[in-house]
Amino acid sequence: MGKALIALLTDFGRRDYFVASLKGVILSINPDCQIVDLTHEVPDYNLQAAAFILWACYQFFPAGTIFLTVVDPGVGSERRLILLQTDRHIFIAPDNGVLSLILNQERAELFEVSNKKFFITDRRTSFEGRDKMAPVAAWMSLGVSVTELARPVTSVKRLDFAEPQLRPKEIQGNIIYEDKFGNLITSISQELVARFLERNKGTNLVLLAGKKKITDMAPTYSLASADRPFFMINSLGLLEIALYKKSAAETLGLGSGDPVVLKVD
Amino acid sequence: MGKALIALLTDFGRRDYFVASLKGVILSINPDCQIVDLTHEVPDYNLQAAAFILWACYQFFPAGTIFLTVVDPGVGSERRLILLQTDRHIFIAPDNGVLSLILNQERAELFEVSNKKFFITDRRTSFEGRDKMAPVAAWMSLGVSVTELARPVTSVKRLDFAEPQLRPKEIQGNIIYEDKFGNLITSISQELVARFLERNKGTNLVLLAGKKKITDMAPTYSLASADRPFFMINSLGLLEIALYKKSAAETLGLGSGDPVVLKVD
Amino acid sequence: MGKALIALLTDFGRRDYFVASLKGVILSINPDCQIVDLTHEVPDYNLQAAAFILWACYQFFPAGTIFLTVVDPGVGSERRLILLQTDRHIFIAPDNGVLSLILNQERAELFEVSNKKFFITDRRTSFEGRDKMAPVAAWMSLGVSVTELARPVTSVKRLDFAEPQLRPKEIQGNIIYEDKFGNLITSISQELVARFLERNKGTNLVLLAGKKKITDMAPTYSLASADRPFFMINSLGLLEIALYKKSAAETLGLGSGDPVVLKVD
Repeated sequence: MGKALIALLTDFGRRDYFVASLKGVILSINPDCQIVDLTHEVPDYNLQAAAFILWACYQFFPAGTIFLTVVDPGVGSERRLILLQTDRHIFIAPDNGVLSLILNQERAELFEVSNKKFFITDRRTSFEGRDKMAPVAAWMSLGVSVTELARPVTSVKRLDFAEPQLRPKEIQGNIIYEDKFGNLITSISQELVARFLERNKGTNLVLLAGKKKITDMAPTYSLASADRPFFMINSLGLLEIALYKKSAAETLGLGSGDPVVLKVD
Repeated sequence: MGKALIALLTDFGRRDYFVASLKGVILSINPDCQIVDLTHEVPDYNLQAAAFILWACYQFFPAGTIFLTVVDPGVGSERRLILLQTDRHIFIAPDNGVLSLILNQERAELFEVSNKKFFITDRRTSFEGRDKMAPVAAWMSLGVSVTELARPVTSVKRLDFAEPQLRPKEIQGNIIYEDKFGNLITSISQELVARFLERNKGTNLVLLAGKKKITDMAPTYSLASADRPFFMINSLGLLEIALYKKSAAETLGLGSGDPVVLKVD
Repeated sequence: MGKALIALLTDFGRRDYFVASLKGVILSINPDCQIVDLTHEVPDYNLQAAAFILWACYQFFPAGTIFLTVVDPGVGSERRLILLQTDRHIFIAPDNGVLSLILNQERAELFEVSNKKFFITDRRTSFEGRDKMAPVAAWMSLGVSVTELARPVTSVKRLDFAEPQLRPKEIQGNIIYEDKFGNLITSISQELVARFLERNKGTNLVLLAGKKKITDMAPTYSLASADRPFFMINSLGLLEIALYKKSAAETLGLGSGDPVVLKVD
C-alpha cells in the first residue's frame, strides 16, 4: 500500500478559501497525506451530479482511498454525517443521498460519524466540511479506525434516480449528465442494450431524444460523421449522445433530466 | 513535522502556463516539496480579494507552511519582494499590501528578499513569480534560512481596509467579499457584534444593506427561511448576508465595497 | 532524483470525472507518484494551444518528468499513441502534432506505444487517456523502460505553425496565444528581433497589429503608460502585445492567428 490518499469532491468552486481550508486541515493532521481533487465544480447543491461524478471515477482509485464529498445544502442542520465502508474504499459525506450510486454498486457497511472529539469544533458550524468532515477523513488516513469515529446505522438517505425501463420494443431512460464537451450521458446501460438486442436481433436501433430522432451509432467520437449527432456506448458503459467536436447538448437543445427512448427503427 | 509545504495564491487562472511554471521551478529545486493551491482565481490584480482569501485559510495550515502569493500588478518594477515570518508560517509576496491582513493578525518579522543568487535570473523579468519568488520559496522549503535570503526591513506596504465603526446604536461596516455561492461577507466581526449586544441587551437587530432591510438572523444556511435573505455569523467569525441555496449578491444587487449597518430595530 | 513526477495537460476541464479518472489510474499503479496539473483548460480540441502551453513550461520541470498530454480529437481511431524521449523528459501523447513544438526545440527519440499489456483495456475505447495513456505513464514512472512499452518510429505528425519571416525592413509574424490577462503573444522571438535590430541600428520600431499601430515599447507591464497598448519581449522570449492591467486582446480586438508586423517606423 502507498501512502494515505484522500479524494475531495465538492461544489465549492476554486475561487474562494473553501477548498484550501479543507486541505490545510487535512495536512495539519496528516502532513504526509496525498490529496486528490475529483472536482470542486459540482453545480451548486447538485447532489445528483455529485453522485454521478463520484460513481464515474471511484473505481479507478487505489484500495484504501478515502473519498470526502462535501455537497451539503443542509450544512449546519441536524442531518447526520455518514461513513460508508466498502471492500476497497471509505466514503464520508453528509447524509443527503450523495452516496446513493455507490450504495447501488457496492456492498457497504453504514456508519454515522458520532465521535465529536475528532471534530475541530463540536458546536454548530456553517462549514462542516472544514470543521468536521475534513478532520475525520484526516484522522482516518492516519489509521484511526471506523469504530473509534462512528457507530453503525441501518440505513442512510437515498436519492431517487429514475431507473431505465426495458420494454419489448424500446428502452426508456433519461439524460443523467452533460459533460463539458456537451456529450449527453443517459441512464441506459450497455447491459440493458445487450439484453434488448438479444430480444430484437438484426434490427436497427434509433434513439429518440426530445423531438430528435438519432439514427447514427458509432463506436467512438472520431468515427462518427461530422455534424451528425450519434449515439454510442461510452467509457462508463452508458449510452451517450454525442457530436464529433461539437456540443450535442447545445446542438440538440437537450440536457439533464430529458427523456430518451432507444427503440427498433 | 511533515515534509515541506508550499501554498500558492495567485490571479494567474488555470488555463495558461503560469501556475505550471511555478510548480516546475519549485519541484526542480525541491522534488519532495508538497504544493497546495489556495486558489489561482483571484480576480485580476485584486489585492484586497487575495489578502482576504489568504487571511481566511492560512490558520488552518501546518506550522512551517510557506505561503507564496503572486498577485502582482507591479511586476518588473522596483517594488520589493518581501518575506514575513510569524511564529508558525512564512509568507512571500510582492510589497504591495497583499499581506496586510496577516500583519493585522500576527506578530511578524519583516524582511526584503535581497539575495539574488537564489533567483533564476537577477535581471528584470516580467514573470517574477517564476523567476524570483518560486525559487526563493523552494530554497526555503529545503532549509535555506531567512537570513541567507533576505534582510530585515522596518515596514512594508499596507492596504487601506476600512475598519468597521461601533456606534451606540449601530455598527457601520462594509461588504468585503462575495463568495461563489453569492454569500456576502462583511467587515463586522463576531466580537464587535458581541460588544454591541452587551450595550443593547434584549433588542432585535436588523441589517441595512443597500436599500434593503434584513430582519432574519439564522445560525446557518439551512436553518433560514426559503427565499428570505438573512444574516449570520459565518465560519470565519464575520457577519455574512446569505440566502438559502441562492445568491444573496444577485438577489439583493449588492457586492464588495457596499456599506452595511447593523442596528437596533 | 526525487520521486516520480507525471505532469498532465488536457482539454478535459475540471468539472467532470475525466481528470480524476486519470489520477486514480496513475495512483493505483504508482501510489507514490507525484502528479502535477499543467492545465486542463486547453480550449476543446485545440492542439495549437496545447502545444504552446507545453512548450512554455516544460523546461522548468525536473529531469525525469513524464508529460502526459491528452488533447485528442481522434480518440478511438487508428491514430497512434506516441512517446518522445529527450535528454531530460518523456512526452506521451496521441500522434496528432501536439508535441510539435517540443520536437522543434529538442532532440528526441520517437516511439509508438505498442505494448498493449500495459493498457487497462486493449479494446477500442472512447477514453484512451484513462485506459491507455495514463497507465503507460504510470508504469514508466515505476521504471518500466521505453523499449518494453514502445517501438521506435521514424516520424510523427507535425502541426503546421507559421514561421515568422525576417525581411530587410520588417518581421512578419502572428499572434499565437492569448493569455487570461488578454496579453497577446506572437511568434516573433527575441532572437529574431535582435537580428533585425542588428541590421537596423538606431531606428525606432513600431508594431502593426490588425489595423492598429503600436509605438510604445516597455520592458514589463508595470512600466508601460496607462491605457496605451505596448509591446515587449515577454518571459518566454517572445514579442508580446499588452496593456497595463487591462486586456490588450479585448481593447484591440485581436486574437490568435492575427498577423503582426514589426517594422522600422
